[in-house]
Amino acid sequence: MRMAELSGESGVPVATIKYYLREGLLPPGERTSPNQARYTADHVRRLRLVRALIDVGGLSLNQVGDVLDALDEPEPDPHHVLGVAQRGITPAKEQPGEAAQEWAMDRVRAIAERRGWEFKPDSPSVSVLVSVFCTFRELGHEDLLDRLDGYGELADRIAEIDLAAVLGLPREEMVESAVVGTVLGDAMLVALRRLAQQSASSRTLRRPNTPATGDGASASTPKQDPHVR
Amino acid sequence: MRMAELSGESGVPVATIKYYLREGLLPPGERTSPNQARYTADHVRRLRLVRALIDVGGLSLNQVGDVLDALDEPEPDPHHVLGVAQRGITPAKEQPGEAAQEWAMDRVRAIAERRGWEFKPDSPSVSVLVSVFCTFRELGHEDLLDRLDGYGELADRIAEIDLAAVLGLPREEMVESAVVGTVLGDAMLVALRRLAQQSASSRTLRRPNTPATGDGASASTPKQDPHVR
Repeated sequence: MRMAELSGESGVPVATIKYYLREGLLPPGERTSPNQARYTADHVRRLRLVRALIDVGGLSLNQVGDVLDALDEPEPDPHHVLGVAQRGITPAKEQPGEAAQEWAMDRVRAIAERRGWEFKPDSPSVSVLVSVFCTFRELGHEDLLDRLDGYGELADRIAEIDLAAVLGLPREEMVESAVVGTVLGDAMLVALRRLAQQSASSRTLRRPNTPATGDGASASTPKQDPHVR
Repeated sequence: MRMAELSGESGVPVATIKYYLREGLLPPGERTSPNQARYTADHVRRLRLVRALIDVGGLSLNQVGDVLDALDEPEPDPHHVLGVAQRGITPAKEQPGEAAQEWAMDRVRAIAERRGWEFKPDSPSVSVLVSVFCTFRELGHEDLLDRLDGYGELADRIAEIDLAAVLGLPREEMVESAVVGTVLGDAMLVALRRLAQQSASSRTLRRPNTPATGDGASASTPKQDPHVR
């Protein structure tokens, strides 16, 4: 298909496709003339993956590039691809003080030991945890860490489902499925957690004297929220 | 304290503090002269919360404003504040086709029914799930939804811990703790999931013939990743 059809098929504007081609996020089409190239269903598929990782997964263009590079290796190693996708979560944040960092790192090391997880002080996930723990402490909510082991146990159970979901697939599908399930799965899990929280919190936290028209006070019906559609 | 001390104490630059004051994210200090105001420990605390929600929680300035407005109500309602914090998760994304949306909405409705969750089609969490499910389908990974009930059950268990963590607190602390635990808790859970995945995937997915120097193929030691520190 031509560029215009590729755009129609994928829903991605031509200018954006050209940009992705320049950035190497999309392999070039087969040249049919100096100014034209032919694209295939693989291009459509790749474009959809790129959009999903950016729009829904929240990855940066650079991170998408890393994921695609790993996917495009002649024999992609699922463990490696997963690892690349995992880098997408480190928040950009100024470092907290050294003492706080050390305290937080000790907490992370301890939970990793208790759960039997590999502990590498410079891994992106460890940095995220250090940053979150430091922030809890800075804000005076260290008590939120009291239940860390409960969360750790549930993380193990989530990871079991994650792995089970991809292990049955043929290797070439396994890799992409793991990436999509990991990156988009984050958004899914956060949203499921919200629904579960809403349900738990309306049972236990909502005040008896909240007006019956209490929808205004509910998360679910924001009236003028620019972020909702 | 003066503005300069407030900056030193909170680690937030003076220009940023002035911006937050103009935007109403920080209440004004007590005027001591036409050009000077006095700030208190409450200001330091509020600044830290604002930075945490932005830097670690990934909220936009508008979303932070909404959360603070809810926190600042004379008698903050934890359920309401949680709801406001929950809006922070809707990804900006073009809408998928109508048929796909309907299919996805049905899946969300069904899981909500099975779990006993309140289902409101226009809630932010439902929008996120619709968007994620549509993307799974668009990418040909519908099979990732086969294990949705497993994730739903774990979401309920996470929410139980979330609620238990704040229920024991005095009301005025409960609200802020719920917000911090929810927004920063997302980042924490994602990172814990990654560590658990790494551990599960090195046990089961790593190839036997991966070189012994396999660190290069591991998530934990990216060599040149601009996102890591």
